[in-house]
Amino acid sequence: MIEKIFELMNEQPVNHRNLYQLLMDTNTVDIADVFEHLSREKVVQMFRLLPKSMAADVFSYIEPENQQIIVEALTDIEVNKIVEDLFVDDAVDFIGEMPANVVKRVLQSVSVDTRKTINQLLQYPEDSAGTIMTTEFVGLKEYNTVGRAFEIIRNIGVDKETIYTCYVMRRDRLLVGVVSVKTLLLSDPEDTIGDIMDTNMVFAHTTDDQEVIADLFKRYGLLSLPIVDKEGRLVGIVTVDDIVQVIEEETTEDFEKMAALTPSEDPYLKTSVVKLAKNRFTWLLLLMLSAAITGAILESAEEIISSVYLLAVMVPMIMDTAGNAGAQTSALIIRGMAVGEIHARDVIRVLWREIRVGTLCGCALALVNFARVFLMNGRDFWVSFTISVTLIVTVIIAKSVGCLLPILAKKIKIDPTVMAAPLITTIADASALLFYFYIARIILKI
Amino acid sequence: MIEKIFELMNEQPVNHRNLYQLLMDTNTVDIADVFEHLSREKVVQMFRLLPKSMAADVFSYIEPENQQIIVEALTDIEVNKIVEDLFVDDAVDFIGEMPANVVKRVLQSVSVDTRKTINQLLQYPEDSAGTIMTTEFVGLKEYNTVGRAFEIIRNIGVDKETIYTCYVMRRDRLLVGVVSVKTLLLSDPEDTIGDIMDTNMVFAHTTDDQEVIADLFKRYGLLSLPIVDKEGRLVGIVTVDDIVQVIEEETTEDFEKMAALTPSEDPYLKTSVVKLAKNRFTWLLLLMLSAAITGAILESAEEIISSVYLLAVMVPMIMDTAGNAGAQTSALIIRGMAVGEIHARDVIRVLWREIRVGTLCGCALALVNFARVFLMNGRDFWVSFTISVTLIVTVIIAKSVGCLLPILAKKIKIDPTVMAAPLITTIADASALLFYFYIARIILKI
Repeated sequence: MIEKIFELMNEQPVNHRNLYQLLMDTNTVDIADVFEHLSREKVVQMFRLLPKSMAADVFSYIEPENQQIIVEALTDIEVNKIVEDLFVDDAVDFIGEMPANVVKRVLQSVSVDTRKTINQLLQYPEDSAGTIMTTEFVGLKEYNTVGRAFEIIRNIGVDKETIYTCYVMRRDRLLVGVVSVKTLLLSDPEDTIGDIMDTNMVFAHTTDDQEVIADLFKRYGLLSLPIVDKEGRLVGIVTVDDIVQVIEEETTEDFEKMAALTPSEDPYLKTSVVKLAKNRFTWLLLLMLSAAITGAILESAEEIISSVYLLAVMVPMIMDTAGNAGAQTSALIIRGMAVGEIHARDVIRVLWREIRVGTLCGCALALVNFARVFLMNGRDFWVSFTISVTLIVTVIIAKSVGCLLPILAKKIKIDPTVMAAPLITTIADASALLFYFYIARIILKI
Repeated sequence: MIEKIFELMNEQPVNHRNLYQLLMDTNTVDIADVFEHLSREKVVQMFRLLPKSMAADVFSYIEPENQQIIVEALTDIEVNKIVEDLFVDDAVDFIGEMPANVVKRVLQSVSVDTRKTINQLLQYPEDSAGTIMTTEFVGLKEYNTVGRAFEIIRNIGVDKETIYTCYVMRRDRLLVGVVSVKTLLLSDPEDTIGDIMDTNMVFAHTTDDQEVIADLFKRYGLLSLPIVDKEGRLVGIVTVDDIVQVIEEETTEDFEKMAALTPSEDPYLKTSVVKLAKNRFTWLLLLMLSAAITGAILESAEEIISSVYLLAVMVPMIMDTAGNAGAQTSALIIRGMAVGEIHARDVIRVLWREIRVGTLCGCALALVNFARVFLMNGRDFWVSFTISVTLIVTVIIAKSVGCLLPILAKKIKIDPTVMAAPLITTIADASALLFYFYIARIILKI
């Protein structure tokens, strides 16, 4: 489809009728994709070729850089038309990405009402419900009949992001209930909304974090969620399509934090190399410096190592196993807490499970390792034994640290993802080596 | 709310009227939660207390263990009522979790039609669109009028998971278009469906993987998606609430694979310790054995280390930094590919960025490290220099491996998540140490 659009665009002269027909038959998301591959001039040319009914919708899916190019090329009247046609949450997203001069021009070109709404939405704290909600919804009154409700939907519904849930408000905009179009369709036209509405609705506040909002959608399988202000007055709704985006963003953030990165919302290929390096440097530095502890342990073991060098050869294996065993557990626990399967109150249960899992894994690994070291490195029973016992203890320690730190973090209200693999590896490494040389001294009598 | 239900349940005698009223005012998802905290007998007692209209809905949210307890306590007629009232995708989920004898009894209790549908859905390959779709949707014909469409929705809509998108089929069930209730509401009752339907619809096949389905929902912001068989006949639909679940599951799987775990769908606290240990053992063993390479490198460096022991002390720091630098990159790249921001064709661009990022981070770390080692460890310029140069090269190597392996995996159609931190750590460790002792030999002339 995209290839065909390209082909038609590159014909000289452009066959406008064919192109128009093809665009009408193409999904707006796919059309927006085409813009990514166009030159500056072509972007504007292509945008002007869009059927009027599609322009705003396509615009909302275009990348910020191209949105800017387009807005800078359009007249004030054209800008007004586009922005007024956008759903207000998309307009806010778009304005949030523009430089100050473009924002100023856009806000000047729109109606007073739209400007007021946009400015209000721009003021909510970052990642709060207020920033992802739209103010466009179908509002009903308790005394409306079902027949009247359908009239209202028909009159104003076309401009609303979703009409499938209608919100019932009192005169002071206090949210008192919700009613789905399904219920409306199955009711008698003479029924009044107050009698058929659901008063036991799920709602959230403007200042709630978007992660809380996403959890409500997941838990209750919602299509949309009403957002109220401190006084319980309905100010907007969040729809499920935006929530799918939020879940993606939050997941990416978790992945980044777990890999010891400063989270960033910019796409990888569009972030400057310096910024990428900055996002990584802090954690790399902290972790590098904390490895000084492991270094100090090795330093104090010089005597042992110089008498049995095999013990040094096994250090990477012990460190890697500690790191991997800890990372496995912390990933499971962090994810389990994120999806609500594991709670801070389960700490003892989780620790007891991890100790048993660690013992099983540790013993199995130790057996394999004993055979390998004993057979390949001079059949020294006591050295092989020392290494294998260390391995068991290492896995148990790593698994315990791997579960305790994230749960502890949650308890003291730090983000558990910070306690992921890298930090746990450092702690598990140090404990493992400490124990290693301690029992080496005892068993090998060095 | 949950506390109040408990309170009313524990009163002797139970005030059925108050409890009934409270249950009617509570969200079915919240009611299902109550079951988790009840004893075996109370589970059955509580389920029988549920308002009839809520029973099936609550049942679909109850955990498999309690579902089994309930089904075993109910009569065949009651089981029939529940299962027939379930949406068919929920019925399939429930049956999929039951032991063979319960499955047999459930299938015997339902109608022939339901049994046929369930059996058919159970046959689709695991995690395919067929297993998450429901066969209950509103189907229309092209020649229906809008007025007739509303009649159809009113007659059959109450049993359909979503009525907001209707699917237009020819006589042979070939999918020819979709029409939203929004469009229907905004059209004239005399319009025919064929004229107002959208023929340019997004759809998927029964055998498509659920991840592909989730991507379509994300891309196009869908509420539901029609699923067709090989011949293009409509056999079911997937709704967005199920997709939110799928996204969660797939994310958990990615987290697990990236932490070197065999993925498992069972919740952590409900998995046996032996199974947990099994899921972790394979990767721990493989990685432990592969650490033998790093061990061998250390072994061959005995001479160097015994002459400059400080070089051994720095091994953990170099290994940890290699691991962390590699993990940062692989996490970014794997996630970038998962959300479609990075493609296999970008490999050169990505590698070039990572080399530059690695150089920046590596040099900054090396500076700090040089100062630390020089000042704290006897002001030996050449040893400090060797360690710092190694650090720069280590970070560049780790970042290159961290981006190349996941992209390569994608190219040869292996799951890139397997190339995450643990494997990359092992490779980066070995390369870093190899280089370390190589330049130590040259610079320090050992």
